[in-house]
Amino acid sequence: MVRSFGAGLWGLTPVGQRTRRKLLRHLRAVMSEVDGQEVHLPGLQYRDRWEQSGRWESFENEMFTLRNRDGQELCLAPSHEEGMVHLVDGRVRSYDDLPVLVYQIATKFRDDRPRNGLVRSKEFTMKDAYSFHASESSLGATYRRIREAYLRLFDDLGLTVAVVEADNSVMGGSRSEEFVAPVENGSHRLRFCRDCRFGVSDEHGDLERFEGGDDCPECGGTLTASEAIEVGHIFELGTRYSERMGLTVDLRDGSSRDVLMGSYGIGVERLLQTIAQQHADTDGLSWPVTGWGSIAPFRAAIVPIGDDESVRETAETLYARCGPDDVLLFDGDRSPGERFAESDLLGIPVKLILGNQFRETGNVELEFRDGQTDYATPGDVPEIVSRFAAGRSGG
Amino acid sequence: MVRSFGAGLWGLTPVGQRTRRKLLRHLRAVMSEVDGQEVHLPGLQYRDRWEQSGRWESFENEMFTLRNRDGQELCLAPSHEEGMVHLVDGRVRSYDDLPVLVYQIATKFRDDRPRNGLVRSKEFTMKDAYSFHASESSLGATYRRIREAYLRLFDDLGLTVAVVEADNSVMGGSRSEEFVAPVENGSHRLRFCRDCRFGVSDEHGDLERFEGGDDCPECGGTLTASEAIEVGHIFELGTRYSERMGLTVDLRDGSSRDVLMGSYGIGVERLLQTIAQQHADTDGLSWPVTGWGSIAPFRAAIVPIGDDESVRETAETLYARCGPDDVLLFDGDRSPGERFAESDLLGIPVKLILGNQFRETGNVELEFRDGQTDYATPGDVPEIVSRFAAGRSGG
Repeated sequence: MVRSFGAGLWGLTPVGQRTRRKLLRHLRAVMSEVDGQEVHLPGLQYRDRWEQSGRWESFENEMFTLRNRDGQELCLAPSHEEGMVHLVDGRVRSYDDLPVLVYQIATKFRDDRPRNGLVRSKEFTMKDAYSFHASESSLGATYRRIREAYLRLFDDLGLTVAVVEADNSVMGGSRSEEFVAPVENGSHRLRFCRDCRFGVSDEHGDLERFEGGDDCPECGGTLTASEAIEVGHIFELGTRYSERMGLTVDLRDGSSRDVLMGSYGIGVERLLQTIAQQHADTDGLSWPVTGWGSIAPFRAAIVPIGDDESVRETAETLYARCGPDDVLLFDGDRSPGERFAESDLLGIPVKLILGNQFRETGNVELEFRDGQTDYATPGDVPEIVSRFAAGRSGG
Repeated sequence: MVRSFGAGLWGLTPVGQRTRRKLLRHLRAVMSEVDGQEVHLPGLQYRDRWEQSGRWESFENEMFTLRNRDGQELCLAPSHEEGMVHLVDGRVRSYDDLPVLVYQIATKFRDDRPRNGLVRSKEFTMKDAYSFHASESSLGATYRRIREAYLRLFDDLGLTVAVVEADNSVMGGSRSEEFVAPVENGSHRLRFCRDCRFGVSDEHGDLERFEGGDDCPECGGTLTASEAIEVGHIFELGTRYSERMGLTVDLRDGSSRDVLMGSYGIGVERLLQTIAQQHADTDGLSWPVTGWGSIAPFRAAIVPIGDDESVRETAETLYARCGPDDVLLFDGDRSPGERFAESDLLGIPVKLILGNQFRETGNVELEFRDGQTDYATPGDVPEIVSRFAAGRSGG
């Protein structure tokens, strides 16, 4: 799935990129449902706008800075509040141009101390959204709408997350929440409730007030103790940026005011790694399947055993009918055992086995990733396999 | 479409990003047709691999370099030959693992002197592909296959390009060709043949041997003189990288050899700007439509005039049936004239006008971007509009 390029830098192999692309498609679908408009900003940014916002210094060692051939200072943007203010400035003039929700799927650079593989890397992809408002109530409504959309997204992806009230720290603003996923060997300690998603972590709030097994203070359920990692963070930024950067709108009464902002980030590779960690077993990955579908790199693996003609022909037919761009057809010299192991290692939801059973009965043996088996006629297989596609039911 | 972020840095607005996304979808489809596998490499890279390939110094002032918090030197990759060698190293061991074609759609950084808007920017997107081979003949076959695929791609996009024999310069290797598009105010001077795509530029080869109006030395057609910009560059790299970086494969006879490589780049935003420049008129952009479809940001603009109920209802119906994610429905206070002008400025291929004609006859007035008009029943409109979608016929 991934290959190291040195401390904190990762590349994705074809199989890893397949999974990432399915996740990105779903992220775009979710953003489209909440009327987000996709944009694309540069990652390199000149110093001036960061001076204006007051953040050039505040990222300290975590921001990569450099100079161009003419000696001008630039940074590799660790987040894009400044850029988004610049993008909408001049395009948004009046209260009735608002609210606006823009997002991008963009590379972020942070000179963080690498740890936990993809979790703290120096370069990563973020799906970051930014909203602009003429009133507190509009900001609050969009904040809640995106919060709910992100929680649905995590459900669709089969990810367990808790919501932790958080500090705004370097982002600024008035309110923020983190989406924190319980995993083994995470970077934070978490107490959370599986029923209502209440969470408290050692990074934000008073973890020591709670133990695993305690009653949930929100719903009375039972708290679980776990290590965890952050997969998303949403902020009511208020006028933190617009005030300093001069982004105002005219109101109905003829006065003008600083625009209110929210920002909403999800770490893409982090999310991939977290889903993988929550579901892996001793045979390898095991990408979850929900009513939405699955981000597994392939929806099925076809394993023909032996080389008689009907096996080969049926394998080709299944390949064509199950979605050839999304199905792995094993060929080459390797043994059936090696193919089974590779399919399980990659977390492919089902193996379509054409072996003795097929030769005797004409039925395909389906071995699901959880070890269950079933049999179906070659004609019935495509429909069965379609539920493992990404986004079949629209997310 | 775009917004400046300072010298050499550009952001894309929602409309610009829509067009870019359509182009990216088509690029991926074309790469998939030639069995390319998508991967994703980091843009930040440690110095060591660039020392190994001998390119740390050769990019001179065009490569952005920086240090991390621990003082290690990194660059922002201006191209990815080194990274791709690292990605396939260990995964490719024997001649029967080859050929392999991998590609990515990735941000590149080059500290070039900015000019011509998107054409020479310090940060841009490249679709860069890299092939790996055990023999010269395999490299040659893939090179020709990708050359043809890229020419089909340019045709699909409605772009006129010439093919210019080029130097390999800092990339190294034995053979390369540039795809050069004639435009007004380009960075190169070009003589080219519209019939056979022969071209010679002032950057590569002896431009002075030819004048506009001369016979084409390849096919006997007529040469045209133009300014031009480069939109793609393909290279037979040979063993330039594998030798230095130790990438070998075992051959059938038990010996081993350095892997042969090719690389194939297309500049994404450059391509967008070039298509726009080749087709714009005094009213604005005019995205071309071919048998493949169009990368226009929307396939149609619906302009309801007046607010009677049947106009409003028909506008909504057209919006839903013509592909709501890909059609612009004008609402709000602006005048029909302003809406028409905006649609033309964005280069939307057709305006669907619901005005007097509709009230009198029930027919929708279709005004195409080239000024032609037609009429159709609301039921017939979706089929007419579908030919302006991106990639309808599969590219």
